[in-house]
Amino acid sequence: MQSRAISTTTQLCAVIGNPVGHSLSPALHNAAFDALGLDFVYLAFQVEDVQSALAGMRALRNFRGMSVTIPHKIEAMRYLDEIAEVDRSIGSINTIINDNGRLIGLGTDGPGALKALVDGGAELDGRNVLMLGCGGAARAIAFTLARNARLAKLTLLDINEAMLHGLAVDLKAGTTARIEAEALTDGSLGRAMGTADVIINCTPIGMHPKEDASLVPASLFRPGQVVFDIVYTPLETRLLADARAAGLRVISGVEMFINQAVLQFREFTGVDAPVEVMRRVVMERLKS
Amino acid sequence: MQSRAISTTTQLCAVIGNPVGHSLSPALHNAAFDALGLDFVYLAFQVEDVQSALAGMRALRNFRGMSVTIPHKIEAMRYLDEIAEVDRSIGSINTIINDNGRLIGLGTDGPGALKALVDGGAELDGRNVLMLGCGGAARAIAFTLARNARLAKLTLLDINEAMLHGLAVDLKAGTTARIEAEALTDGSLGRAMGTADVIINCTPIGMHPKEDASLVPASLFRPGQVVFDIVYTPLETRLLADARAAGLRVISGVEMFINQAVLQFREFTGVDAPVEVMRRVVMERLKS
Repeated sequence: MQSRAISTTTQLCAVIGNPVGHSLSPALHNAAFDALGLDFVYLAFQVEDVQSALAGMRALRNFRGMSVTIPHKIEAMRYLDEIAEVDRSIGSINTIINDNGRLIGLGTDGPGALKALVDGGAELDGRNVLMLGCGGAARAIAFTLARNARLAKLTLLDINEAMLHGLAVDLKAGTTARIEAEALTDGSLGRAMGTADVIINCTPIGMHPKEDASLVPASLFRPGQVVFDIVYTPLETRLLADARAAGLRVISGVEMFINQAVLQFREFTGVDAPVEVMRRVVMERLKS
Repeated sequence: MQSRAISTTTQLCAVIGNPVGHSLSPALHNAAFDALGLDFVYLAFQVEDVQSALAGMRALRNFRGMSVTIPHKIEAMRYLDEIAEVDRSIGSINTIINDNGRLIGLGTDGPGALKALVDGGAELDGRNVLMLGCGGAARAIAFTLARNARLAKLTLLDINEAMLHGLAVDLKAGTTARIEAEALTDGSLGRAMGTADVIINCTPIGMHPKEDASLVPASLFRPGQVVFDIVYTPLETRLLADARAAGLRVISGVEMFINQAVLQFREFTGVDAPVEVMRRVVMERLKS
């Protein structure tokens, strides 16, 4: 093991969650700190008592930044000093910055997804977006798109009608976008696929170890559609493989994952992340 | 900067204090972790709110160990789950172990000083020890000697008679050693030096930048005495230089500093510290 140049001024960043054993964030951020020679180190902490963990972060002055993952993305908001208005609407955060004892929360999942879509060549302006699933990540992406992309329409489908209705109501209250929401059935999916330009899977369907599953029958794909799956284990889900086979443009969830980390890195350090270093580390881990 | 192999299982240790900018502990412990290839990293946190910092330590499961320095060695005791009886008598701790959410406090200054004395060739069994100063470090050393060395007599001298009396009362209540305590004057110092076999300076007299000062006139030294100064900046204080010039055996405070860290390292990691690695790092830092 090589000695990192750790000193009394080294700043700590960390992911908190439960569990955290499979998090890629320590490898990702430490490689980026190293590449730029920044005096930071990134650890992972399993946490049950979120309130105490954040009280500790506030008291430990070199504890600069935190990534917050499942199951703490909602509860963590209670113990912060400042949260961006869009993140209050979304109802969760994934990033905390310790600004000299003042804890500021924000979300980078939504902006990370938007950047993945734009970089992946998805046209959004005036287009119809179909979102499958209404969980935490879906909320972040839906609010970001509804506020920042001039969509023609955002259609939400989910089997959980309470969550579906809740997100639709919040989006209508908090944005000016045209929102449609319907229970996910073969019929509603077929109709929505008939008009969608961009399809975003925000459900866990297709995630390892259930890699054979896809919500969208390949027969529903139409030329020109772009398909984005926020799942990134495997790197190419069944949904994306089917879409690619149908000749469609596809975007892997790993792009959103990298982007959200890039945005966190900027918040932690104040400097731009070495994106290719981070991408290489993530790809090495996900392929191994 | 080289990449340390940090992962989701890397355990954190840290020193808390205010200030912590000059602490040698990060350099010392990280070098030792590296030498043994241990999956640990050691940082420094400036802390004002000790209670929150310790609540955070309890909640962050990979936050394994803490060194506690000025001004938190006394207050930290309030927020722990378990403290060794000897350390409760001493009234301060310098080490906290997070045992799966249970915080255990202990002191390594006293045992570190005892080991420095023994390793330095000081005979203690049946001897008279003179201790100058009654502050926090003196309390730790006095209790350790009074409990673990079969001294003939432990004489305490200090200009602060309230602290002197307090320590003497506590030692008499908590140990079976023969304790004498007297206000520090030219007269009391001369008398005590006349019977002392081992002299321990626990006052800051002689510490950088007041390096010319010594509490003990060189004329009071007698052949065969051993002189130990807990000050280690400079490595050889005026007291030790004078004693060495008089042909006496001398022990630098740096030995106590290294020993207390070695004992902490064992508590943090469960394995024996690479003492020579730690000594080399400390010496490099103190000589530069």
